[in-house]
Amino acid sequence: MTSTRVRVDLPRWLTAWQRSLPARLPDDRAAMRVALEACRRNIDAGSGGPFGAVVCAAATGAWLAVGVNLVVRNRASVLHAEVVALTLAQQRLDRDCLAAPGGVVLYTTTEPCAMCLGAIPWSGVTRLVCAARDADARGIGFDEGDKPRAWIAGLRRRGIDVTRSLMRDEAVALLEHYRQVGGEIYGRRSH
Amino acid sequence: MTSTRVRVDLPRWLTAWQRSLPARLPDDRAAMRVALEACRRNIDAGSGGPFGAVVCAAATGAWLAVGVNLVVRNRASVLHAEVVALTLAQQRLDRDCLAAPGGVVLYTTTEPCAMCLGAIPWSGVTRLVCAARDADARGIGFDEGDKPRAWIAGLRRRGIDVTRSLMRDEAVALLEHYRQVGGEIYGRRSH
Repeated sequence: MTSTRVRVDLPRWLTAWQRSLPARLPDDRAAMRVALEACRRNIDAGSGGPFGAVVCAAATGAWLAVGVNLVVRNRASVLHAEVVALTLAQQRLDRDCLAAPGGVVLYTTTEPCAMCLGAIPWSGVTRLVCAARDADARGIGFDEGDKPRAWIAGLRRRGIDVTRSLMRDEAVALLEHYRQVGGEIYGRRSH
Repeated sequence: MTSTRVRVDLPRWLTAWQRSLPARLPDDRAAMRVALEACRRNIDAGSGGPFGAVVCAAATGAWLAVGVNLVVRNRASVLHAEVVALTLAQQRLDRDCLAAPGGVVLYTTTEPCAMCLGAIPWSGVTRLVCAARDADARGIGFDEGDKPRAWIAGLRRRGIDVTRSLMRDEAVALLEHYRQVGGEIYGRRSH
C-alpha cells in the first residue's frame, strides 16, 4: 500500500500530432488555432474534457507545449489543459518558471478556472490569451470556481497581460460539440 | 523536440518514510503532525519548499497520501504540497474525485495559495485543516496569490469545512527554519 508515484499519461494522438505542427506559430490566431484543434482532437479521441492550451515564446512564436484536459484519463483533478501545458513547457525548458526575455504566452480555449488562474502567476507566463468566456463553460455545466471578481486586473497588476474572446465562437462551438456527443461533466464539474 | 511527458519524481526519503507511518492517524493533531514531519524532512533533505500535506479518510483516519512541495526538484510550479497529496490520493483510489461517504480531509502545513485553493473543490475533499496562516508564509517571502477575500466562506458554501491555525506555532517554526537554512524562495515565490 504505497502512493508514491504520480502518473501523467499523455494521449498518443497528442504526441503524434504535435510532430506535424510547425515550430513557430506566427500570431495569436495561429496559436489559438492549435489550442482549439487540440481541444477538438481531445473530444473526438475521448481522451478528456473540451479544453486545450498552448504555451509560446512571445518574441518568436515558437511553441513550447500543447496541453489538453486529462482529468478523467489520469484520475487527477488538477490536470486541466493549462496545468498540463505549463508543466510540459517548464519541464521542456528545465525551469520551474517560464519567465524569459520577450515573455511567454499561454493560450487557452476557455478562460481559466480558479485553480488555473492561481497557477498562472507561479508559472512565469507574461500574457494570457483566452477564447471562450467563463460563462460559456458554465453554459454546458462546468464550474469555473470562485475567482476574484477583478481577476483580470489582478493578473495585470502582476505584469501579466490578458486578451479575452479571441476566436470565442470557435471555442464555444467545441464546448457545444462536447455536450452534444455526451461528454462527461466530470468530478465536481471542473475543467 | 517533443514535450509530451510530464515527470513527477518523488523523493526517495518520502517513499521510505511513508512505510513507517501507521495506517491510521487517529485525530487532527496526529494527521497534522505527519504533514509537519513531511515538511521538516523536505527541508532537511533539500528536496523542496517548506510545505507538507496529508489526505485522510475522515471516518477512519486512514491516510491516503502524503505530499510535499516539489516545485524546484521537478521543474513544475504547480507541484505544491497540496497538489502532490491530492493527486497521489486520487490516483491511489483510481478516481479523479475523492468525495466518499464520511468525507475526506486535506491537512496542510500552510493555508493554501490561490492555486491550491482553487484546486480543493475539484479534488472532492470535504474538509480542510491548516496550520500556518497566509501571513506566516508571506513573512518569509512567499506569495500566496490573489485569493478571494472571503475564501473560507467560499469553501463552506461548497460544503467544505475549514479549520485554521491547528499547530500553527510548529508550522511557523518550520517556515523560519527554512529561512534560516537559506532555502530558496523559488519562482515567483509561490509555495
